[in-house]
Amino acid sequence: MSERLAAEAAALDAADGLRAKRAEFVLDDTVYLDGNSLGALPASVAGRLADVVGREWGRLRIRSWEESGWWAAPERVGDRVGALVGAAPGQVVAGDSTSVNVFKAVVGAARLAGEGRDEILVDAATFPTDGYIAASAARMTGCRIRAVDAGDLPGEAGPRTAVALVNHVDYRTGRLHDLPATTAALHAAGARVVWDLCHSAGALPVGLDAHGVDFAVGCTYKYLNGGPGAPAYLYVRRDLQARFDSPLPGWNSHADPFGMDPAYTPAEGAARGRVGTPEILSLLALDAALDVWDGVSLDAVRAKSLALTDFFLRCAEAYVPGGRARSVTPVPHAERGSQVSLSCPSGAGEAMAELARRGVVGDFRRPDVLRFGFTPLYTGFADAHRAARVLGEVLAG
Amino acid sequence: MSERLAAEAAALDAADGLRAKRAEFVLDDTVYLDGNSLGALPASVAGRLADVVGREWGRLRIRSWEESGWWAAPERVGDRVGALVGAAPGQVVAGDSTSVNVFKAVVGAARLAGEGRDEILVDAATFPTDGYIAASAARMTGCRIRAVDAGDLPGEAGPRTAVALVNHVDYRTGRLHDLPATTAALHAAGARVVWDLCHSAGALPVGLDAHGVDFAVGCTYKYLNGGPGAPAYLYVRRDLQARFDSPLPGWNSHADPFGMDPAYTPAEGAARGRVGTPEILSLLALDAALDVWDGVSLDAVRAKSLALTDFFLRCAEAYVPGGRARSVTPVPHAERGSQVSLSCPSGAGEAMAELARRGVVGDFRRPDVLRFGFTPLYTGFADAHRAARVLGEVLAG
Repeated sequence: MSERLAAEAAALDAADGLRAKRAEFVLDDTVYLDGNSLGALPASVAGRLADVVGREWGRLRIRSWEESGWWAAPERVGDRVGALVGAAPGQVVAGDSTSVNVFKAVVGAARLAGEGRDEILVDAATFPTDGYIAASAARMTGCRIRAVDAGDLPGEAGPRTAVALVNHVDYRTGRLHDLPATTAALHAAGARVVWDLCHSAGALPVGLDAHGVDFAVGCTYKYLNGGPGAPAYLYVRRDLQARFDSPLPGWNSHADPFGMDPAYTPAEGAARGRVGTPEILSLLALDAALDVWDGVSLDAVRAKSLALTDFFLRCAEAYVPGGRARSVTPVPHAERGSQVSLSCPSGAGEAMAELARRGVVGDFRRPDVLRFGFTPLYTGFADAHRAARVLGEVLAG
Repeated sequence: MSERLAAEAAALDAADGLRAKRAEFVLDDTVYLDGNSLGALPASVAGRLADVVGREWGRLRIRSWEESGWWAAPERVGDRVGALVGAAPGQVVAGDSTSVNVFKAVVGAARLAGEGRDEILVDAATFPTDGYIAASAARMTGCRIRAVDAGDLPGEAGPRTAVALVNHVDYRTGRLHDLPATTAALHAAGARVVWDLCHSAGALPVGLDAHGVDFAVGCTYKYLNGGPGAPAYLYVRRDLQARFDSPLPGWNSHADPFGMDPAYTPAEGAARGRVGTPEILSLLALDAALDVWDGVSLDAVRAKSLALTDFFLRCAEAYVPGGRARSVTPVPHAERGSQVSLSCPSGAGEAMAELARRGVVGDFRRPDVLRFGFTPLYTGFADAHRAARVLGEVLAG
């Protein structure tokens, strides 16, 4: 069986149209299945960052805000991210953390809500920070917060709902929520939606514009490989921008930031989502990292992602001793992100540590989840096969 | 006269105990007097950042959050900044922009205020972002905002004052406000104070602990040379930390961040000021940049700073044609930061551009201010002399 699966992996890799992309990353013999937490290093980053430090900061110094394009980088890099999540230019700005952007988006959405809408819905399985920040946004806008299962949002949204904050892909199980249908249902209820794309951007087509999403946020250090803590981003749909009333109206979002006007006049467009001075080194590392996406089709990424997780699930079924771990990731493609999560009721944490010692890196999420992220740009089918085989050995041991 | 001043500059440089520090920066023939906007590049940054990218991110990848100390970096770097502003360890956390930290601090301070205190004072000449963000904080905490001259704060604070937000050094004029007396007066009125240290940290001793300051924020890309948009910081005095109620309770500030608890329980200590995942590349560039402070006395920095600005003022008086520019920076040392601002009613913007073409970099702030920042670690008296001489030539031309 092992030989048959190994041969199948080799055949799938040989037919993989994205296979050449792997050479654009710094990788080694490790099977790195934690790109859903921190993406691998794109090879172009080191040289670009050395130039940003040595020449742009070191020699041009203050002139770089204009001459090296630092000032406009949040919008420029935002547009590059936007292209990967289905947003036309001028709607995405990069900067701050995901948490800070959740605050901007949820408060901004709540302030757009009509009379009597004072309820903020959050998906019950949300990544925790979204829930904490949404609660703060609710407290500071006179709203109350209610947690409901993401799948139940269409039925739960009502005349009091101002906005729902939803994770596109559940970080724990890898479940992909139905963005088009959920967005439409919330709109039908008169509510806005904020999508958190942390676990979908760069893994699958998102289609923000196509589906009429109101607001979206996400990080760039997972499937977008922007580096540790790379700047997050905020999407505000074009027709909402003029009414977007940010709770963090820093000077970078002013219509005339160097006018030093004591009165605040917000900028038009995506720049309204800016706050303070952007962390340029992290931002331009992200900019360089995004080069790996040149010429890549998100449809091809999605097709490979599903093929990888399908194949890994088959291999895991073949290698893992019965009962030691079971997948909690949905089987239907329409409900699956780009990770596989296995529930491993006994010794999950130790098993993941042992996997790492044997050259397979995933991660462990309490209480019992083994997470394996599949990043189609640099992960191949032989990697998936090896990971499942080693997992089987560890869990049999 | 020119020869006498040149000789004096040479003598002052020869006697300068901080002179050797200049070799720790990447500099050239330019007289760089814009370190109050973007500090020059410390030589140690490039190597450190190359290692962070190539080894910590590229090879250790996700393991670096623990093994390379990424997770604890905001507190560790915060303590290093704290040492430079008179804060004992455990009270400063690095991360986010100054604007975001102003929001945390002002909301946090307003939430500590006693019954009936619903007024937030801001200094009338504040750097604009502080005023914009304070207004948002007021709006979201049910307070009103009132702008008063920083010097008038002691008399203006009253029984309704919750908190005052004050710039330690006025960005436009270089005026240093009296932190000990203002803090004491606000406390006497039952109010809290948030100091913005952007233009004082690294330029003079601040003494946060010694003077009982409640909250402070600041950037690290000016006198601290942390790089473009380097992470800002938040100081919350130790005895206030347990009651600090952050408006941005992101998962990094949770008592058990990897517990993924749907309920928010804030961390103890400085970590409560964290929000989302820190921008590690920018943060560790700052960390490396702070190495230049090893063994440096802030008293020596302050003494040299005042000597530099004194000398520059004398040189400017000697070289600048009468009436073409006049200093708006206070003469008394106790009222002066580390910059000299000259009001130049006609052609200030063009004069500053011409200065740059002649190798002297300062900056221009509308409507008519020429700003020259003096960074004692890498600026010498001959630099000050040359800047004033070239300024005189430009304004005479």
